[in-house]
Amino acid sequence: MTGRLSFNQITCKHASLRECVEACARHGVGWIAPWREPVAELGLKESARLIRDSGLRISSLCRGGFFPAPSQAERRARIEENLRAIDEAAELGAPLLVLVCGAAPDRDLDAARAMVARGIEKIADYARQRRVRLGIEPLHPMFAADRSVIVTLGQALDLAEPFDPELAGVILDVFHLWWDPRLYEELRRASGRIFGLHVSDWAVPLPGIVTGRSMMGEGVIEIRRIRRAIDATGYSGPIEVEIMNEKIWAQPIDDTFSQMIEAFRACVID
Amino acid sequence: MTGRLSFNQITCKHASLRECVEACARHGVGWIAPWREPVAELGLKESARLIRDSGLRISSLCRGGFFPAPSQAERRARIEENLRAIDEAAELGAPLLVLVCGAAPDRDLDAARAMVARGIEKIADYARQRRVRLGIEPLHPMFAADRSVIVTLGQALDLAEPFDPELAGVILDVFHLWWDPRLYEELRRASGRIFGLHVSDWAVPLPGIVTGRSMMGEGVIEIRRIRRAIDATGYSGPIEVEIMNEKIWAQPIDDTFSQMIEAFRACVID
Repeated sequence: MTGRLSFNQITCKHASLRECVEACARHGVGWIAPWREPVAELGLKESARLIRDSGLRISSLCRGGFFPAPSQAERRARIEENLRAIDEAAELGAPLLVLVCGAAPDRDLDAARAMVARGIEKIADYARQRRVRLGIEPLHPMFAADRSVIVTLGQALDLAEPFDPELAGVILDVFHLWWDPRLYEELRRASGRIFGLHVSDWAVPLPGIVTGRSMMGEGVIEIRRIRRAIDATGYSGPIEVEIMNEKIWAQPIDDTFSQMIEAFRACVID
Repeated sequence: MTGRLSFNQITCKHASLRECVEACARHGVGWIAPWREPVAELGLKESARLIRDSGLRISSLCRGGFFPAPSQAERRARIEENLRAIDEAAELGAPLLVLVCGAAPDRDLDAARAMVARGIEKIADYARQRRVRLGIEPLHPMFAADRSVIVTLGQALDLAEPFDPELAGVILDVFHLWWDPRLYEELRRASGRIFGLHVSDWAVPLPGIVTGRSMMGEGVIEIRRIRRAIDATGYSGPIEVEIMNEKIWAQPIDDTFSQMIEAFRACVID
């Protein structure tokens, strides 16, 4: 059973959206999470048609966010980029836009965190109008300098809480969250705000930083335990396999799909 | 003024203890933090004499810890290793042993964290007898899989709090802690338990994982702000420069000392 398995497109970074959709069909994967860049490559309308015709369901669109910037003009441009991402999600029929919040333009984490909160505020109404939910994804603290000043589930929940739980929630990625001593406590608090779950693994030694993720089962993360704790909050949605790994990117797409499905059964679901 | 600057020996990994002591003298650095391996290389008694005769003060000995292990026999061996480290600190006249707590032997973080707590408990009495304080150092979460299941200041304080504040406290390293949204709150809680401060910087891109640290000023950490917040709790002790970086290791020791002193003045103290 791959019922909850969603293929996040970055896992086969060098494949086109069409190749990914076809691989999902060949391997019986029912969900997909496309990225904006390959969608733009094929064209938004054509991508929407391709996915719709394939019968695949979309778990999320990756990704918006990156709110902090040094000037007001640049911050406004980031907001506009997010509004475009919301439009794209709506056109595709993606229920959810993943937000990777962005790094500080200088050393000031507090200011950058405030820019993130303000950015989400600025796009919330439009997201509601377009019926696209906003999934705030905390990243691992090793990305605090260059990708996200939001690095814990606690922070992501603090950001989501001012908004309607139908509109703003969190995306949980075991790679980003597994180390957190407050994880299980914060998961209980997250009940009703969990919009998505990403899985991969943390191998030792890590094969890279940005490309540091491994296939489930090849690392130290208690994936099944975390997934069970998430399900216990009431989440029963798709589980995206999102792996950035040079070796996986270099292999044939069907190998990746076979490994992914086997690892999903062996290490993620019961 | 380099008054609070302490030279942590790993910053010049390939230099002998004697070379490091002589460089401290040449450059007017008054503190040193030796590592156990180069101390053993020279011999404990000879190392103690060398440092004592040089007039250098010792800020800490690096390092003990690494408590979790798969079997009880191995855990007992780790305890014994820590007792030896305490003896070495006492012989050297080091007031403080730095504890890097260790990783989980399997995937179970909770069990490993309990092994750390139990390990500290097991060595506490002996440390008190030998008048060596125990400094629990939380490491960055990117080391959670292979070096330390203790990854936040909050956790380190929880571990220290059952013990006399003269005996057990925390070692703060800006590289390990800068990303934490709870940092300043936990620093206030840490008042009276801060046994040491380590500085380096987080450059983008990171030059490595284990060897990912850069000279102060070359990265994004608000070092001076963090140092001020630490001083505001009442800490006025030495500040160790602890940098693991292949490029720095490859350069002449006097270059490293000059850069270190300049960066310390420019980016750490007022």
